[in-house]
Amino acid sequence: MRFPGVYAERGVFVCFEGGEGSGKSTQSRLLRDALTAAGCTVRLTFEPGDTAVGRELRRIVLSPETGVLDDRCEALLYAADKAEHVATLVRPALERGEVVVTDRYVDSTLAYQGAGRSLDPAELEEVARWATGDLRPHLTVVLDLEPAAGFTRFEERDRIEGESLEFHERVREAFLAMAKHDPDHYLVLDARLPVEEIHDAVRARLEPLLAQAVRA
Amino acid sequence: MRFPGVYAERGVFVCFEGGEGSGKSTQSRLLRDALTAAGCTVRLTFEPGDTAVGRELRRIVLSPETGVLDDRCEALLYAADKAEHVATLVRPALERGEVVVTDRYVDSTLAYQGAGRSLDPAELEEVARWATGDLRPHLTVVLDLEPAAGFTRFEERDRIEGESLEFHERVREAFLAMAKHDPDHYLVLDARLPVEEIHDAVRARLEPLLAQAVRA
Repeated sequence: MRFPGVYAERGVFVCFEGGEGSGKSTQSRLLRDALTAAGCTVRLTFEPGDTAVGRELRRIVLSPETGVLDDRCEALLYAADKAEHVATLVRPALERGEVVVTDRYVDSTLAYQGAGRSLDPAELEEVARWATGDLRPHLTVVLDLEPAAGFTRFEERDRIEGESLEFHERVREAFLAMAKHDPDHYLVLDARLPVEEIHDAVRARLEPLLAQAVRA
Repeated sequence: MRFPGVYAERGVFVCFEGGEGSGKSTQSRLLRDALTAAGCTVRLTFEPGDTAVGRELRRIVLSPETGVLDDRCEALLYAADKAEHVATLVRPALERGEVVVTDRYVDSTLAYQGAGRSLDPAELEEVARWATGDLRPHLTVVLDLEPAAGFTRFEERDRIEGESLEFHERVREAFLAMAKHDPDHYLVLDARLPVEEIHDAVRARLEPLLAQAVRA
């Protein structure tokens, strides 16, 4: 399987990526509100878990009760969540010309399961690309943050957040490497910047893409 | 990813495949009992669902309540079950020199999700082979049966059993094609033969392989 990347011809697909506590959900909501106010139909979503089966998979992969999972099993569960998410939610919304804003996508799998675990990154990427039909965001915003800074925001951690600081440092480097490799489709922002400043930078970068979106 | 097939150097890995009602579980148990009596340590297992996470995945993929799943999502859930099954149960037992007898394995995924659904068979195979590290049974016994005959045994059907007769006919053809392609590792038997006759044929074919098994 070889994947050159598929970009929707209608709608706009935007993804926020970054470590724990980097502000992805805050920025996703701000963007949703701003684009809605600008007349776009916006679908705010996330991975893992924003479908019926996805909610069950999210519980399995994140609950500490699950205990140790085989690395391939875990990666395949994330991939299954993506397949359902793209097929039933992301792609239909894009086909209607909507803006889809997702909190995490394929890059999170590549960063967390690839950089953090024992899996061959190229094979893992094939599985994740197959799951999504290689549909890629028009823009991925990486909210970059030192892992130690992100964790000050959490009291309790789930199975993934409970990994070591070194694990999360490898995750961060993986996000930055992907962004560096494809600057046309990535925007890296310092997550410690003021919320409004980050939002404005995202809006500015998105503006030319919005021609693909249906406006009310 | 290219997969030449990996065969365990210790232990014996036997798989029963076939359509619904073909007698796989009866034959699995008979084989387990006979080999145990012959001094082997035998681990009887099945897919999907013979691990903790597998039980949850089995419920998701087989329950009519799940409704329609994206085909790739479904295939990835089966693959996740396989990954956990092989990593935590099959491979460790083989490494201890045990006989592992499984009711369904990779061929079921290739037959049901590949022949029956919309997926590219080669891509589906890559995913399933990746999940299992391409570990293959030393012997796969295909219990061949016309789908219409198998269904007389069921009152209620799960999500997969509820598919059309044509679906199950394609599944049957897929099993037969895999067996024909690799006669060294397959034994096809008519599932309508007497139970003991099938059992004896399996035992005879297995006998030379048992040198790899630890005996009490």
